[in-house]
Amino acid sequence: MSEGMTIPPQLHPLLSGTPIAFMTTMRPDGRMSTNPVAMLFDGTHVRVSSTADRKKIRNLRADDRITLCVVQPGNLNRYVEIRGRAVLTPDDERTFIDSIAERYMGADRYPFDKKWQERVTVTVVVEAISAPEVPLADDPPYS
Amino acid sequence: MSEGMTIPPQLHPLLSGTPIAFMTTMRPDGRMSTNPVAMLFDGTHVRVSSTADRKKIRNLRADDRITLCVVQPGNLNRYVEIRGRAVLTPDDERTFIDSIAERYMGADRYPFDKKWQERVTVTVVVEAISAPEVPLADDPPYS
Repeated sequence: MSEGMTIPPQLHPLLSGTPIAFMTTMRPDGRMSTNPVAMLFDGTHVRVSSTADRKKIRNLRADDRITLCVVQPGNLNRYVEIRGRAVLTPDDERTFIDSIAERYMGADRYPFDKKWQERVTVTVVVEAISAPEVPLADDPPYS
Repeated sequence: MSEGMTIPPQLHPLLSGTPIAFMTTMRPDGRMSTNPVAMLFDGTHVRVSSTADRKKIRNLRADDRITLCVVQPGNLNRYVEIRGRAVLTPDDERTFIDSIAERYMGADRYPFDKKWQERVTVTVVVEAISAPEVPLADDPPYS
């Protein structure tokens, strides 16, 4: 796997804890799809879990472009946008989705999968990072 | 302006009040850009305000594809995704941005623009709507 860009340390707090990322993929019809997803940042990689039957994974198999936007809760003017490529790997043992369940739900195992669902881990190879650093009164990015 | 699809009444509550939309545009480099924006829904149209100098407006002038995702606060499993085309109109009197300032900030006028900034209103011509209606235990869309 290509390593991509390193996420600078000053952005790590935004990606830690239990952030919700707005993840964008490209649909086969040429439109963009943007959905909320749980994500885990291990200090190096940003990863998301999904299942092979979902549109977002089908979209990524056809077109690996991916963009994630994470906002600081309570302050829309602090956010990070990560653009890159998605690398898909099987999560057959469900290790990664269980680590998401532990972080987000305090559960040992993710309880909602059906047996036939194939878990897939999405790892972002980062190609570009944007993060507004301007204060509200200067240049509010939300406008 | 083409009217596009009508937003069904059951989705109006999600779009009312002071929602934050995650707005996606296409960059000239072929990557997707996703940012948080304030938005106003008047019962018919979804509108966003920006200024002509911003990347999102430059992106939309080159490629009018737009996607907005709005999540219900506190429940990630209820969201709406609106895909369509952006129609840009001048807001030279700053009427629309002032109505956003009133709704989001309780202010009569939006206080942060510089004199040289040209206000632009983005109106979404809706071509497709997705809204998950499945309960958490069935099929959590956030995974």
